[in-house]
Amino acid sequence: MSQVYNFNAGPAVLPADVMQQAQAEFVHYGALGFGIMEASHRAPEFEAIIQAAEANLRALMGIPEEYAVLFLQGGASLQFGMVPMNLLPAGGSADYADTGTWSSKAIKEAKLFGNVNVVCSSKATNYDHIPAFGTWKLDPQAAYLHVTSNNTIFGTQYASFPTPPAGVPMIADMSSDILSRPLNVRDFAMIYAGAQKNLGPSGVTLVIMRKELAARCPANVTTMLKYSTHIDENSLYNTPPTFGIYILKLVTEWVQRQGGVAGIAARNEAKAKLLYDAIDGSGGFYRGPAKLDSRSRMNLCFTLPKAELDKPFLQGAVAAGLVGLKGHRSVGGMRASLYNAMPLAGVEALVSYMRQFRSCHG
Amino acid sequence: MSQVYNFNAGPAVLPADVMQQAQAEFVHYGALGFGIMEASHRAPEFEAIIQAAEANLRALMGIPEEYAVLFLQGGASLQFGMVPMNLLPAGGSADYADTGTWSSKAIKEAKLFGNVNVVCSSKATNYDHIPAFGTWKLDPQAAYLHVTSNNTIFGTQYASFPTPPAGVPMIADMSSDILSRPLNVRDFAMIYAGAQKNLGPSGVTLVIMRKELAARCPANVTTMLKYSTHIDENSLYNTPPTFGIYILKLVTEWVQRQGGVAGIAARNEAKAKLLYDAIDGSGGFYRGPAKLDSRSRMNLCFTLPKAELDKPFLQGAVAAGLVGLKGHRSVGGMRASLYNAMPLAGVEALVSYMRQFRSCHG
Repeated sequence: MSQVYNFNAGPAVLPADVMQQAQAEFVHYGALGFGIMEASHRAPEFEAIIQAAEANLRALMGIPEEYAVLFLQGGASLQFGMVPMNLLPAGGSADYADTGTWSSKAIKEAKLFGNVNVVCSSKATNYDHIPAFGTWKLDPQAAYLHVTSNNTIFGTQYASFPTPPAGVPMIADMSSDILSRPLNVRDFAMIYAGAQKNLGPSGVTLVIMRKELAARCPANVTTMLKYSTHIDENSLYNTPPTFGIYILKLVTEWVQRQGGVAGIAARNEAKAKLLYDAIDGSGGFYRGPAKLDSRSRMNLCFTLPKAELDKPFLQGAVAAGLVGLKGHRSVGGMRASLYNAMPLAGVEALVSYMRQFRSCHG
Repeated sequence: MSQVYNFNAGPAVLPADVMQQAQAEFVHYGALGFGIMEASHRAPEFEAIIQAAEANLRALMGIPEEYAVLFLQGGASLQFGMVPMNLLPAGGSADYADTGTWSSKAIKEAKLFGNVNVVCSSKATNYDHIPAFGTWKLDPQAAYLHVTSNNTIFGTQYASFPTPPAGVPMIADMSSDILSRPLNVRDFAMIYAGAQKNLGPSGVTLVIMRKELAARCPANVTTMLKYSTHIDENSLYNTPPTFGIYILKLVTEWVQRQGGVAGIAARNEAKAKLLYDAIDGSGGFYRGPAKLDSRSRMNLCFTLPKAELDKPFLQGAVAAGLVGLKGHRSVGGMRASLYNAMPLAGVEALVSYMRQFRSCHG
């Protein structure tokens, strides 16, 4: 089969090494006699996997001891409800930065549980940038400050993070850029991410949080939605998504082999530069809707001179083995998701195709 | 590798055909050019899978048009909260039958949202039977009646189901016996099941419910926990656990090849009879703690003459390729889970080992 590059925004490309290893041991895992998918979540083989997944993430991201690392279900969408359910006390208020569709959804869910103070919004310009921190209207009494580190749909990303007022915990939805660049975990009280971009398959949600934060949860929250439940039981309160956690563990080992987060970040910078240079050097044929200082290294959006060219561009791309490039309808045009597992060769093939398409249609 | 039979209670054995097919197409799914695990949940290839999974379940179980078939996350444990959150109005009361650990957990969660009337309980005799329906104290005004069709830990199962008072919807947790025997879906307003016993891997939760029931949900429930959200969006409101749904679809095809639910049920009866006959014909060496009329066809529990024999029994079993037989600590002894995918040959091997062990230790 000829090479296909998968630019989907998620579920997304996984490292070829990981896919091959998982295939090789799919039916017979180690000395188990059957597949890891068929093993009990209490089996020593699976316990070794979930412990290694946690240990690898702690080492790769520098997650301190006072933080829990949890493997949950439901995606970021369930976190939009769980965060205020656990951390926004009745009558309290939380700060939210509105930088895209997923931020807006998080805000909508938080409003079911308390007051929301929208500290900034780029909605008026179709979410084309991350508002400058100096303009944010932060509440020093906020229960927490919520940010979305990368905006998958609009192709924007925080280049750095704000400093919340003293005592206000910062919570970040990092679904689409976790493990893509170095960060200081202690700058955040909590980080969460659906796995299906940089960590593994859909169906696993990673939560990294200061353990003491979980004590804020009111007593009347159902057991499965209390972070404290999963902290107390090391993510084994009930049956976790075992196969997804196994793949995630293989992905963490792959990241280690790439030189860790620093190595991955350098590759991601090079990949993004290659594509942005192709956009910026196209004499205006391709245009990136995101403002320069807010451009994402993960989801790179670009438009063509006229919308009628979208269809031929996409058809030609598929013929060239480049799939998943259609942009979200709220932005239009194209979106290339260059997650960790997208090889540089995929971006080179895309840039080459873009040059060729422009020469025919420019 | 020599044959290993996996008697774990869940995650559990999957059909060998399914495991082999999933392995063969793991890295290259059809003409996609990559694995189905890497495909977008909006890709036509995945849409075909989720639609086939639903259609196959509808055909196998005879699920009528007025019922939704949903693929959710969080397991039965999250349903314990979602059911009352959606269906138990403030100030209302729900009926629950207490037949084991999982029933008790469901009751505990429901109490967070309203009043619970426990209609029956076998707790006093360590949950060794399903209480006779004539003794149940049903509330004709109940918001719903909740039953647990099979009790994984105690090895009991409903041989038939009660008839609730007119207008009271019956809700069943069928996590450990769904798709194992024929039933009339219209006898239930809702059926839910974690996938990891008879349907596929952990991380997928099947919900079958009368669509009109979902309208009862209060407005202040977070979007992801409203059944109506997932009914309206055909389980694609957010990214579902795509790979788990793919495996589930393969399992439904395998059930079709076994002659559907009727064929599976006949096999399950034969498997259970073989093991129960071995227990009952052991001259009292092996004993089944569950009462005869409540014995499960899925999880068959038995004890040895003295607890000191448990360890040698288990060690010998592993040496004979029979794994996952240790009973739950609340019952002790052994538990053989004979889910749909356990072949008759596995039960024959177990019975043969039990005969041999008895001849050495009887």
